[in-house]
Amino acid sequence: MATTTATGTRLDLYRQIARQLRADSIRSSTAAGSGHPTSSLSAADLMAVLLAGHLRYDWKKPDDPANDHLIFSKGHASPLVYAMFRAAGVIDDAELLTFRKLGSPLQGHPTPILPWVDVATGSLGQGMPIAVGMAVAAKRLWDAPFHIWTLVGDSESAEGSVWEGFDLGGHEVTPNVTPILDVNRLGQRGPTELGWDTDAYAARIESFGWDVLVIDGHDLGEIDEAFANARDADRPTAIVARTIKGKGVSFIEDKPGWHGKALNAEEAKRALAEIGDEPSRTFESPKPPKWSPPQVTTKKPELKAYTEPVATRKAYGDALAQVAAARSDVVALDAEVSNSTHAEEVKKTAPDRFFEMYIAEQKMVASAVGMQCLGFRPFASTFAAFLTRAYDFIRMAAISQANIRLSGSHAGVSIGEDGPSQMALEDLAMMRAVHGSTVLYPSDGNQTAKLVAAMADRDGIVYMRTTRANTPILYGANEDFPIGGSRVVRGGAADDKVTIVAAGITLHESVKAADALAKDGIKVRVIDLYSVKPIDTKSLAAAAGATAGRVLIVEDHWPEGGIGEAVLTALNDGGVKNITTRHLAPREMPGSAKPAELLHAAGIDADCIEKAVRGLL
Amino acid sequence: MATTTATGTRLDLYRQIARQLRADSIRSSTAAGSGHPTSSLSAADLMAVLLAGHLRYDWKKPDDPANDHLIFSKGHASPLVYAMFRAAGVIDDAELLTFRKLGSPLQGHPTPILPWVDVATGSLGQGMPIAVGMAVAAKRLWDAPFHIWTLVGDSESAEGSVWEGFDLGGHEVTPNVTPILDVNRLGQRGPTELGWDTDAYAARIESFGWDVLVIDGHDLGEIDEAFANARDADRPTAIVARTIKGKGVSFIEDKPGWHGKALNAEEAKRALAEIGDEPSRTFESPKPPKWSPPQVTTKKPELKAYTEPVATRKAYGDALAQVAAARSDVVALDAEVSNSTHAEEVKKTAPDRFFEMYIAEQKMVASAVGMQCLGFRPFASTFAAFLTRAYDFIRMAAISQANIRLSGSHAGVSIGEDGPSQMALEDLAMMRAVHGSTVLYPSDGNQTAKLVAAMADRDGIVYMRTTRANTPILYGANEDFPIGGSRVVRGGAADDKVTIVAAGITLHESVKAADALAKDGIKVRVIDLYSVKPIDTKSLAAAAGATAGRVLIVEDHWPEGGIGEAVLTALNDGGVKNITTRHLAPREMPGSAKPAELLHAAGIDADCIEKAVRGLL
Repeated sequence: MATTTATGTRLDLYRQIARQLRADSIRSSTAAGSGHPTSSLSAADLMAVLLAGHLRYDWKKPDDPANDHLIFSKGHASPLVYAMFRAAGVIDDAELLTFRKLGSPLQGHPTPILPWVDVATGSLGQGMPIAVGMAVAAKRLWDAPFHIWTLVGDSESAEGSVWEGFDLGGHEVTPNVTPILDVNRLGQRGPTELGWDTDAYAARIESFGWDVLVIDGHDLGEIDEAFANARDADRPTAIVARTIKGKGVSFIEDKPGWHGKALNAEEAKRALAEIGDEPSRTFESPKPPKWSPPQVTTKKPELKAYTEPVATRKAYGDALAQVAAARSDVVALDAEVSNSTHAEEVKKTAPDRFFEMYIAEQKMVASAVGMQCLGFRPFASTFAAFLTRAYDFIRMAAISQANIRLSGSHAGVSIGEDGPSQMALEDLAMMRAVHGSTVLYPSDGNQTAKLVAAMADRDGIVYMRTTRANTPILYGANEDFPIGGSRVVRGGAADDKVTIVAAGITLHESVKAADALAKDGIKVRVIDLYSVKPIDTKSLAAAAGATAGRVLIVEDHWPEGGIGEAVLTALNDGGVKNITTRHLAPREMPGSAKPAELLHAAGIDADCIEKAVRGLL
Repeated sequence: MATTTATGTRLDLYRQIARQLRADSIRSSTAAGSGHPTSSLSAADLMAVLLAGHLRYDWKKPDDPANDHLIFSKGHASPLVYAMFRAAGVIDDAELLTFRKLGSPLQGHPTPILPWVDVATGSLGQGMPIAVGMAVAAKRLWDAPFHIWTLVGDSESAEGSVWEGFDLGGHEVTPNVTPILDVNRLGQRGPTELGWDTDAYAARIESFGWDVLVIDGHDLGEIDEAFANARDADRPTAIVARTIKGKGVSFIEDKPGWHGKALNAEEAKRALAEIGDEPSRTFESPKPPKWSPPQVTTKKPELKAYTEPVATRKAYGDALAQVAAARSDVVALDAEVSNSTHAEEVKKTAPDRFFEMYIAEQKMVASAVGMQCLGFRPFASTFAAFLTRAYDFIRMAAISQANIRLSGSHAGVSIGEDGPSQMALEDLAMMRAVHGSTVLYPSDGNQTAKLVAAMADRDGIVYMRTTRANTPILYGANEDFPIGGSRVVRGGAADDKVTIVAAGITLHESVKAADALAKDGIKVRVIDLYSVKPIDTKSLAAAAGATAGRVLIVEDHWPEGGIGEAVLTALNDGGVKNITTRHLAPREMPGSAKPAELLHAAGIDADCIEKAVRGLL
């Protein structure tokens, strides 16, 4: 282990590794014909010292929970991280040269297809808050011995999410994570805002409650000392490293016009001649200690049974508290509205596993992604409208193969007086268009409870939309609601005239309409589409078929991308021909008013549904 | 004007106004039965001094371009801003009491339905960067005499977007905007992270390049002096005001549990007795100077004519440069990728109207929204994937009735080697689900140019998706492409067997497939759906009808919420019965590879299209 050798030898070892990381970064990107060699070269010295001196990692056991974590927030420096994997001996020279090729796990930006990668990066400003979120849970819940390192680009510090990350670490006091800021002065199309003003970076980071070590990012001894100090610090400590983009290859060093550009064969040859064109070798990393986190304990959650009207957001909080009580791997995060989303109920059953994220939705989703890397099963909540703030993080979480659960409360115009800024009217479209996502939209307390329990077991990005108002109980506490299913809540006989598809608040309006119509002898089938994705194609197709293709869809969401289009797609996929549909959804910008007034104004209350059914007949 | 009277009299005037603002904040929220009186009371002294002493505003002429601007970033303090409007005499007591009621322009959170409101707020962390973005254009392009004031909550400073705003103002040096941080210590569900640590706030703001004045937010003299100094400063200057939530009403002052809660009638009576229950009056604000911005000049843009393959992103940049040359109100913003989106072309024709936003998409969209308040017509661009970062700002821009144009480049798997983090596969779903949005997706250079020119004239949120690769020219430079239209690029006769609907990159693949099928005598109609929203329902329905309901939809976007569902909805709306569709779209997470390989792997290249057509027959 390098740290036990004499200083001279150690620095020489680092120098050899740095040389190799540079050479391999150039080899792979030149072979690919694209990639970011210059952004890799600026951080090669930093990563050489980390790999051999400070990253406690058993490369043969990437699943060892005692391993350190390394997150390349500047994911475009993928040639460098892949060169590290080569130096660690977990990929060989031939694999290195598959970089960016069809089928290769060495993609343009790192993803967890590779076992040594925690999360996908490449959308800037994400890896860093993810690393800090991971650190928060590792420290608070485990006091874990591993350290989390994250390589951060200077350009990406323009993203507010990076400051959300610093805010989180400063507030939660995370000495177990070290952001390493690679200040190479040059962004994609020119100089960064702050150039080489490392003091300005340091002042910003310090103002968020961190200690900062400013170093020369090419001085191996300085780097070595800074990493040791950062790891040993009992306060959150960041490293600001002044570096040179393209460092080590004279004709690209600190030159504009070289961002994201591979060297051609001739240039690569010249570059390798400068760097030293030796065969690549394998180097050791320090080994992690023997350590495992506490065993996860699980039992069946004792869900509440509801008999009186309750808001599904309240049922969400109640159920989450029970699920957290039953499973030690469940963690809850909320963006300063836990008394509205009712996630605060978790504080009663598992207070140490409730994480207050304040009003910072990007930080919240980033932290959830970071925590799930450690095996936790996060539930993160805020108003559904404000999850739009984290859409890039949610999109990237899918690429990260992350298993996270999101809950958005206060859906639609039905929230009433607070007005459109607080109304989620695009969340279903947004969440449906996430790869492999699950989208749930319960309508009553007992259904909500069962679905929250199911969410804990469900992988991928799982979203639940909840309603602000108390709504009647439709189901018994012992009923089951499989994801991908639906329920018929009115009608179901062969003489139904129209199928109404609804969920959440509009399901209750549909029930009222159906009951009113029934008094006039008009039988309708009302389907509760609590699982918007995956969708119950079979039942929808059967219902449409049974009602001569007459289908009315009612939702509290803009007409685009929500239940209406999901149902239309399902009917089409289900081979239903000759459908006649009506789609009730808000089409004008709502204002503030009582919920009932807004539902009526949006054309989605029982009255409007009744009229639409009559119109279909 | 208050500032010319003796100090004692001036402070007394401020005191009277503050009393009235408090009383009216309570009256309106109690009448509504909801709202945020305590968050209003903390800032009442600040706003009283602003209204009578520093806000140069002709209340009778809200459109006077010389008026100052006031943006309530903490939009939930709407009772306070409406009380200011009452004090200014532009609404009366009766109107004040319509707060949050059906049809009232006094919504739960402010929106520009009211002529004195620039932008909708209520999603926290937005008003502040919008104000700074407005200041950047006002200073650089006009050296305008007006000042921009923005009231910022302490809780909302957890949003990274607030730090993007400070970063922007520090970098662009905007002494013409004053963020007023209302540090009342209490968030929605408890204390804020920093409590009353005004020094911590000051250090953070200073580190982003601002001067900071820390004051007692209830000391009218201190406030008065700070506002005067902030307005006169030649450096960006923020005010950090220590305040008390609920100030002025003893039983709610600094008490938890009073966020977002109206006083009941009895509580309101007690509160008004403390505050002083006098009739409300009208007060004067300082008048703005006589000033108008330079006249807007417009002429027809001299668009390039393309005859050789060109990427639509390049054509976007070329056309934007011409549109900016032709219209003095066009401004361009880009998030540090202008050499990829080609927005940098604007630097050649209108360098002063190009705004570098660095890697901060929220700041970019916020600035675009701020600039359009001044009458500019902004075009903001980045990789389409990264617009997801700004979705909350885009959603709110629709509520703000903002007229902004967004361009997202590098759409879909067709970008190739960079991998999924850089591929927009959800942007169409996201942008379609924005109220009143326009979604354009051109396929060739000449079409792109015409649509960019049309975007300049189009109101609302107008989105253009562009492609990374060079694509063949399909259209002449003199052809027209009305928004809401479509084009038939192959087939069109009565004997077409299948309709293919595509746009952008998949249109070119469809053309290849159609030409290959034609050789086998299979005639297909290929529709270029360059206007995804509004959609050409009539042409789509006619084509489907003409091809016996056989429709193949091909898109480089997740199956949800994109062209597939838009077309299905259109066919349904168009009354087409008995359709048989196939929908080709990526369904697995793509990796890195050559564009052609990824198009094939996703099942959306010419080969796959040809097979699907044969499958439909």
